[in-house]
Amino acid sequence: MELSLSRRLRRTPFSPGVEAAGVKGYTVYNRMLLPTVFESVEADYRHLKTNVQIWDVAVERQVELRGPDAGRLLQILTPRDLRGMLPGQCYYIPVVDETGGMLNDPVALKLAEDRYWISIADSDLLLWVKALGHARQLEVSVEEPDVSPLAVQGPKADTLIARLFGDDAVALRFFRFGFFQWEGRELVVARSGYSRQGGFEIYVEGAELGMPLWDALMTAGADLGVRAGCPNLIERIEGGLLSYGNDMTRANTPFECGLGRFCNVETAIGCLGRDALMRVSMDGPIRQVRALDISGEPVGRCDREWPLWAGNTRVGQITSAAWSPDYQTNVAIGMVRLTHWDAGTELLVETQAGARTATVRGGFWI
Amino acid sequence: MELSLSRRLRRTPFSPGVEAAGVKGYTVYNRMLLPTVFESVEADYRHLKTNVQIWDVAVERQVELRGPDAGRLLQILTPRDLRGMLPGQCYYIPVVDETGGMLNDPVALKLAEDRYWISIADSDLLLWVKALGHARQLEVSVEEPDVSPLAVQGPKADTLIARLFGDDAVALRFFRFGFFQWEGRELVVARSGYSRQGGFEIYVEGAELGMPLWDALMTAGADLGVRAGCPNLIERIEGGLLSYGNDMTRANTPFECGLGRFCNVETAIGCLGRDALMRVSMDGPIRQVRALDISGEPVGRCDREWPLWAGNTRVGQITSAAWSPDYQTNVAIGMVRLTHWDAGTELLVETQAGARTATVRGGFWI
Repeated sequence: MELSLSRRLRRTPFSPGVEAAGVKGYTVYNRMLLPTVFESVEADYRHLKTNVQIWDVAVERQVELRGPDAGRLLQILTPRDLRGMLPGQCYYIPVVDETGGMLNDPVALKLAEDRYWISIADSDLLLWVKALGHARQLEVSVEEPDVSPLAVQGPKADTLIARLFGDDAVALRFFRFGFFQWEGRELVVARSGYSRQGGFEIYVEGAELGMPLWDALMTAGADLGVRAGCPNLIERIEGGLLSYGNDMTRANTPFECGLGRFCNVETAIGCLGRDALMRVSMDGPIRQVRALDISGEPVGRCDREWPLWAGNTRVGQITSAAWSPDYQTNVAIGMVRLTHWDAGTELLVETQAGARTATVRGGFWI
Repeated sequence: MELSLSRRLRRTPFSPGVEAAGVKGYTVYNRMLLPTVFESVEADYRHLKTNVQIWDVAVERQVELRGPDAGRLLQILTPRDLRGMLPGQCYYIPVVDETGGMLNDPVALKLAEDRYWISIADSDLLLWVKALGHARQLEVSVEEPDVSPLAVQGPKADTLIARLFGDDAVALRFFRFGFFQWEGRELVVARSGYSRQGGFEIYVEGAELGMPLWDALMTAGADLGVRAGCPNLIERIEGGLLSYGNDMTRANTPFECGLGRFCNVETAIGCLGRDALMRVSMDGPIRQVRALDISGEPVGRCDREWPLWAGNTRVGQITSAAWSPDYQTNVAIGMVRLTHWDAGTELLVETQAGARTATVRGGFWI
């Protein structure tokens, strides 16, 4: 289906590079263009698992909190206890509303005691955070800065990053970041990213830096076989990387999303949804995210909820699915009722192309 | 460019009808699919101006305010004075943040003294409103109900609406609504819509009603030449219907958008952005939305800001443009600095296809 472009669907600082690399498809994420395929989803997947790719993930917009109450406001947003968070750390933080419903599942970066970036998934978290900061009369500024992440992902990412940013960048541990010089500018580089192949995210501050950095990475990685890439549907399902809006929505609590380990409901004092989540944490969720195998030939695009049935009883839905060349099965993510979520349970899934058997797994593929 | 579909880009209750009608393009609006073209943008335009069309505008999601403080919360959102608003009225309300920046330009419907729907443009206004209601401890519930608007637009809309909802619906004045029976259900029908051709919007409460109503309208309008349609790029530019995200963003005040007549900064007591807008209303804006003609052959798709130049000085940008068959010119909407916004001013506009002359007009085409 054709996507009609307009200014409202924002381009990114890396769009010229993405276009020159022959992007073949986009999705829209935070009202911005996100590439979905270059050669083919399967060829991109194979390349990601063996080489190194540069991803335009500028759609991960930043919400910057700055001021004496920045940390206090961040704790209002999430049930994760942030008291131990140090500058230089990335925290994955479920963000919930007053009923404990997921509003976003961003990564927060602590730049300084009074300054944070929240690198957001697909919802206008800026509006939620700005309204809370203002209404609670906190001393904090909440804005979207001119920062666009560029990801370097794949097994050869360390080699490529070392060439631009040196060995200190490669020495970063997972979910740590540092400030690194490039062309006289200081950039945040973190060991993170939306794949299981390892890599980094460079927080490009200043749109004018986008294409020079893109080009420098492409040149420096030529002998490594570097290519333009993007978050890969197959790889992220295999790896159990959830997608906000697909696998979870405001209807779900973090516990339903399997994110209970990021909820410190006893100690996350100040979190807006704490009362509601306290209740859920005592009783446990009645449905939860699960990995599932779908039998048979490659399934088509999961562009809507696929209902899961046990006989005549609706017991959940599949929300992401793809054919996995490596595992020779249809890998899928769904939300399943506790009565039917044990590993090995066989269910019926209703797809556009007809019914298939879906089997609940004990874990993801990687 | 191909749009990659996923559950995150929500389908609507009318999607089966849209697909059966041969939709050829989509945009994404409020994380939902919005058709952009059926036959061709020009053929759709001609048909809209002469017949009647059914539009899937479910992307106009509703934010429902319900409770004793509903009216108070609504006034916090907007500089428009709402004291005179009566049940049965639609109000176009600019929604602003604490600096007077536009967050959305929705239509509010007063269903009852303690119940409103806000029919939103493309931003997650739900998060802003919910956070404010909660943080200010107002007695109000803020939710997205299962309501999907379906528009009936075009010169024959009155005839078609009369056949389904009777003469009382046709008697509605502009921006008034009523409750009408259909198949035993009560639906809100308003005389409103995102075209200058006249028509109605039906607020379909309950997704299961979507396709039966779609089919009933298609059947009842067969002899009128009814077709599936959608907001038309050419027609809405000719008519000066602004598009949030295209022609205005959070960077703009309502005054810059030419919406000063909806700002009662003296009397809209409670509006969050009132202090900031008070200042702007005294001084006047330094840039404002203008209609512009672009010279020469049909211009391509305006998928990014097109800078406007007066010699070497940047004086604004064009944000929407299309070739108009009726006016035999490229019709455009832009934001122009006050030094260059007088009708007749000739500027240079930089498009992907090269530079053209852009002439500021005194008003829109309709």
